[in-house]
Amino acid sequence: MGELRHTSSGVCVPGFRAWGERGRGYGVALIVSEQPAEVSLMLTSNRIKAAPLEVSAAHARGRVRGVIANSGCANAFTGEQGVRDAEEMCRLAASLLGGSPEEYIVASTGVIGRRLNMPAVRRLAERCSARLECSPEASEAAAKAIMTTDTYPKMCSVQVELGDGSEVEVGGIAKGAGMIAPSLRHATMLCFITTNAAVDRETLREALGEAVRKSFNRVVVDGDMSTNDMVAVLASGIAGNRSTDGFHEALNEVALSLAKSIARDGEGASRYLEVEVKGARSEAEAEAAAKAVAGSPLVKTALAGADPNWGRVVAALGCSGAEVVPERLSIFIESSGERVCLVERGRGTEQAEVLEAARRLMQGREVRIVVELGAGSASAEAYGCDLTCEYVRINSSYTS
Amino acid sequence: MGELRHTSSGVCVPGFRAWGERGRGYGVALIVSEQPAEVSLMLTSNRIKAAPLEVSAAHARGRVRGVIANSGCANAFTGEQGVRDAEEMCRLAASLLGGSPEEYIVASTGVIGRRLNMPAVRRLAERCSARLECSPEASEAAAKAIMTTDTYPKMCSVQVELGDGSEVEVGGIAKGAGMIAPSLRHATMLCFITTNAAVDRETLREALGEAVRKSFNRVVVDGDMSTNDMVAVLASGIAGNRSTDGFHEALNEVALSLAKSIARDGEGASRYLEVEVKGARSEAEAEAAAKAVAGSPLVKTALAGADPNWGRVVAALGCSGAEVVPERLSIFIESSGERVCLVERGRGTEQAEVLEAARRLMQGREVRIVVELGAGSASAEAYGCDLTCEYVRINSSYTS
Repeated sequence: MGELRHTSSGVCVPGFRAWGERGRGYGVALIVSEQPAEVSLMLTSNRIKAAPLEVSAAHARGRVRGVIANSGCANAFTGEQGVRDAEEMCRLAASLLGGSPEEYIVASTGVIGRRLNMPAVRRLAERCSARLECSPEASEAAAKAIMTTDTYPKMCSVQVELGDGSEVEVGGIAKGAGMIAPSLRHATMLCFITTNAAVDRETLREALGEAVRKSFNRVVVDGDMSTNDMVAVLASGIAGNRSTDGFHEALNEVALSLAKSIARDGEGASRYLEVEVKGARSEAEAEAAAKAVAGSPLVKTALAGADPNWGRVVAALGCSGAEVVPERLSIFIESSGERVCLVERGRGTEQAEVLEAARRLMQGREVRIVVELGAGSASAEAYGCDLTCEYVRINSSYTS
Repeated sequence: MGELRHTSSGVCVPGFRAWGERGRGYGVALIVSEQPAEVSLMLTSNRIKAAPLEVSAAHARGRVRGVIANSGCANAFTGEQGVRDAEEMCRLAASLLGGSPEEYIVASTGVIGRRLNMPAVRRLAERCSARLECSPEASEAAAKAIMTTDTYPKMCSVQVELGDGSEVEVGGIAKGAGMIAPSLRHATMLCFITTNAAVDRETLREALGEAVRKSFNRVVVDGDMSTNDMVAVLASGIAGNRSTDGFHEALNEVALSLAKSIARDGEGASRYLEVEVKGARSEAEAEAAAKAVAGSPLVKTALAGADPNWGRVVAALGCSGAEVVPERLSIFIESSGERVCLVERGRGTEQAEVLEAARRLMQGREVRIVVELGAGSASAEAYGCDLTCEYVRINSSYTS
């Protein structure tokens, strides 16, 4: 097994072509594999699932050729018509890219409760199909087409040598920003991952579950779960590998990198936040504690103001359900390679110079809160951002 | 049993005197009963509990004479010294008001992690004790003394005729604003309720649990639970009633009214939000659904912008865990006695004039979202407010 090398392919790993186009408030992305690929999906745990999720879940029972996705309209809460529209998108993909409609995954993001503008989707998909290629630029075009309130496209890809010496690549694109929340079992945003590796269905399912659990499910932006969240991974197998040793690590890296990009681009965010909780009784408790801190509106607003109000971290930890031993609890702020201790084994600082140093670190673009619970030896991270007026501004006039 | 009549007593029901004073960033309130009262407490479910909660829990094992509470410092995460300071506050109350230190409930609210300024507390308590009286003004002074980011004092009181014909009064004061969140079993803010009714310990405990469950636990402001939240009820028994029939209703009314006052005064709130969910399979599901809507940051920001983005209500309902039958789901907006239907039995509106009417209603100071889930016959309400830039501003510089 070799180490992971980051590449610039994005979702355009060998054997996959992509493109994206935007226009009239819509965006459409196409991703297509040169041969039918094994697929695994993770869908939102919201009880109300958008029509494309139902359609995709059915199509993912077999192998698939590609993905058609749109921004501009979620096609959620659109009843039977929504299902017909999602199926129509798959027919459109098949007519443009080959194969049958059942061989396409369909995804949508945007406003809930409106019907898709099918002529707009068709026009953009046709323009995409004329420009499909396997290049970093094509991946970026696809990533840009699915953006909503995202401020930049999200891509990641890595090459790895598997256990049998074969070289494979895993890459992906994602969109996120608002409506990202933790969920114990399900994905919570839009992400398409491709690989030329041969991976059997069961291994792919397990690997995706593990990757999502440790990445997207640890991103906390605003605590709401979308009706449309989907993570899909397509494995074409054209690399011809006989081992999958090393594939999990590559998939984890792509998922984690995309998840962090989403947290960095949280709606209206001025600072990225990583929370690491150590010394927990179990990984589940460490994760719950890290998410409670990263998701606390009071911690998030304190971060926006670069206010080292560690009492809010303490309060969030106490709410998380994780065992905390107050007299062993320590809390640190890190940024740009520097670290300040705000709470040391149960003793919080009131020293002005320490608080001032913490305030300076919190003014960075990337801030890390490290917590030692003193209750065990498990650890976990969570990823988020600050809560700013800009978040309120963006979300108070989304449909208008 | 007579009906409930609202009065102006607040916490100063017959036999209780109170006062509050503020100065130097602190506030102190005293409440004292003319004879030892039966008591019941509900404390935060945060695992990290402030020192005064530990001390009060011990004191509530017996009868108590009164309450000493301060704003300005939470005395939380202050270790052994914090416990000594909380006990010192009870000694102070006993020296000023009579009885033993163990006969006082102590509560604190403010910044976490700082030691109490005991000289400041003492000075204010001494000033309070010189002015104690049984009057609406005294109740208001006490309610004002415990305010932090609250913009107005919260009081409520009702008179009721019990089953045996005796007339009793139940009244209270509360503070809230930020850090209010739902919790299934515990209270989540600061509230002191008094009554001259005779209520036995077990009945008092049951009645308080029920009242809190249907009031404070249905208030959703920002989803964080404080280390200091406490609801206390003191029943002096001087009314000499032999029946408690009717007491529960009076206690429920006081708790609900105070809870709504807290939601109305959510930090930075420009609009008050009531969510009523009907047609749920169970009351628990109705409550979960109502809280999910009232607590959704996306619903709260849409409300701030008077944006009738009903898709976010749908998404929040889907996340709540409650059974939703999409084709029977209806969503209404109400304000000032008017009502607009945004979703009617699964069909969302896209009509400009309907959305415009909804927008107009959402510009009111008090907005009600009514949801019919179509899954059963249970219902519940939740209370909250919008999420504004002002919330972010208040919370990004609290310790500074």
